Amino acid sequence: MLLKTPYLLFLGDAADPLAAKVAQGVKDWRPDYCVGQFSQNGCNADMHIDELSIAQAVERGAKTLVVGVANRGGVISESWISVFEDALNAGLDIASGLHNLLIDEPRLKALSEQTGRALIDVRVPQHQYPIANGVKRTGKRCLAVGTDCSVGKMYTALALEKSLKKQGTSATFRATGQTGILITGNGVPLDAVVADFMAGSIEWLTPDNKADHWDLIEGQGSLFHASYSGVTLALIHGGAPDALILCHEPTREHMRGLPDYALPSLEQLRDTALNLAHVVNPDCKVIGISVNTAALSDDDAKVLLNDIEAKMGLPTVDPFRDSADRLAQALV
Amino acid sequence: MLLKTPYLLFLGDAADPLAAKVAQGVKDWRPDYCVGQFSQNGCNADMHIDELSIAQAVERGAKTLVVGVANRGGVISESWISVFEDALNAGLDIASGLHNLLIDEPRLKALSEQTGRALIDVRVPQHQYPIANGVKRTGKRCLAVGTDCSVGKMYTALALEKSLKKQGTSATFRATGQTGILITGNGVPLDAVVADFMAGSIEWLTPDNKADHWDLIEGQGSLFHASYSGVTLALIHGGAPDALILCHEPTREHMRGLPDYALPSLEQLRDTALNLAHVVNPDCKVIGISVNTAALSDDDAKVLLNDIEAKMGLPTVDPFRDSADRLAQALV
Repeated sequence: MLLKTPYLLFLGDAADPLAAKVAQGVKDWRPDYCVGQFSQNGCNADMHIDELSIAQAVERGAKTLVVGVANRGGVISESWISVFEDALNAGLDIASGLHNLLIDEPRLKALSEQTGRALIDVRVPQHQYPIANGVKRTGKRCLAVGTDCSVGKMYTALALEKSLKKQGTSATFRATGQTGILITGNGVPLDAVVADFMAGSIEWLTPDNKADHWDLIEGQGSLFHASYSGVTLALIHGGAPDALILCHEPTREHMRGLPDYALPSLEQLRDTALNLAHVVNPDCKVIGISVNTAALSDDDAKVLLNDIEAKMGLPTVDPFRDSADRLAQALV
Repeated sequence: MLLKTPYLLFLGDAADPLAAKVAQGVKDWRPDYCVGQFSQNGCNADMHIDELSIAQAVERGAKTLVVGVANRGGVISESWISVFEDALNAGLDIASGLHNLLIDEPRLKALSEQTGRALIDVRVPQHQYPIANGVKRTGKRCLAVGTDCSVGKMYTALALEKSLKKQGTSATFRATGQTGILITGNGVPLDAVVADFMAGSIEWLTPDNKADHWDLIEGQGSLFHASYSGVTLALIHGGAPDALILCHEPTREHMRGLPDYALPSLEQLRDTALNLAHVVNPDCKVIGISVNTAALSDDDAKVLLNDIEAKMGLPTVDPFRDSADRLAQALV
């Protein structure tokens, strides 16, 4: 594990619940990792778990203060830093996915060295990854691929992990981005890995396993997104998935950040991703579709999901509205 | 330009001509960059240009000592370091593509700071690249893509630059690996770029240009190589090529370094690369095929090239045996 559990969730002075979405993710997906939360004046987010002082959290066994909130204005404020100093002094590590790195704060860096506690910036690779060797591993792997970035790939993989475990199948979510790493305490910050080692980092993340175990690999980018497609292909070839899930957001008018680029169809995504996956795993199949219907009414969502299911001939769900149970059934 | 020209080519104590292949590349493709060569005792390579002392090279205008030789045993030897010190003291920069970095040698680092001369390790990105924006640029771009790694993509692009210039077309080879960077004095060491910035580094390398200008982008890896395919896709989407050239080595028994992986067919490479290129440039075409027939006799090579040309319906050449003239004609 990259991070020691359990956590104290730092909410700081979160302007609104969205600013604390990392904390919300930990609370939703790993409630047993959370001994409590730490809020400051002006905090407008609440995980509805115990509000604890640093000392109380340590008493309850907390090992890491997880920064569950986005900072404002691109700096780590003085009020945060003094809490982080208290945490280090009390024996906690600190983990953060902020753009501003903890290790770039001289006071924190010095205190970390002095106390022997770790500052873990999960955006920064913490490991020297190998170059991929393409060797077939035991165990099963499923990867979420998207028509675009930010269409629900992480959520889908986490929901699938939950559904598989519920039905008694051994499964592990494998994080490839900072939020996923903070939620699960482990993973690879793939977008920060040096090009030559991308696929190797995913092989490293999803090693040999029991024959009936499923790794649920968090997707990144999109094969159709000009800025990040190389990252996606490294995930496909490093992950060597047995199963793909297509992820889609139906109201997106163009590729995220690229106004001149239309989204591909689900058929294009299916054919392109499968063709490339077959290079490393000829048995790979597309087993289902996950649609983020947050922008639609219940009725409209139902119609859309039914339409896509009929057209594509694959189980199609919104794992947030429903669950990923039908995808989990399709996997096993 | 990353490197100042002209160069003094450092051959050191090259064990054989192959050890000096970087120097040979500079001599072959940029003879006007070379004021002379510097050999040491035991050197078994010769570029057949003037043998010069450091002082003579400076007199002839040399600006950079280019390490044109691979080192032995994974260390930069004492005898090399003392030459490099002389070069820095005489006012030369030093450029190297060695795995062992010049800046990691304390004596060189100190002397570089003292003299104000640069140590340029071309394996290390020397620029903060942007994230790709996918915006259409003016001018034309051609990318070499391979059935495997090391099948002649750099050679093909350099030969194509030469053929285009010969026929009066404005053209620039764009290096994406260390040898190409040393040869041309500029480029992006793509395999060392952080994942998020790969495609952006290629957009940066191939900016807006005159409508009839061709950038010849050096290919890397292969879409079918599990270790490096992500790098290749970033090249395709960052380069947004108008033309692709398929590169192949016909005697390869498996993908380089991956004994369990067969090479794709030229048809598979054509279809997969074109499908992905069309995401960013719907007008992209495959315009020809470059085959490295070094392992074949003249007669066998001729038969093979004719067979491939007939089967694929595309101009097919070995640019080393013949030239890239037919590919250049197909481009314009």
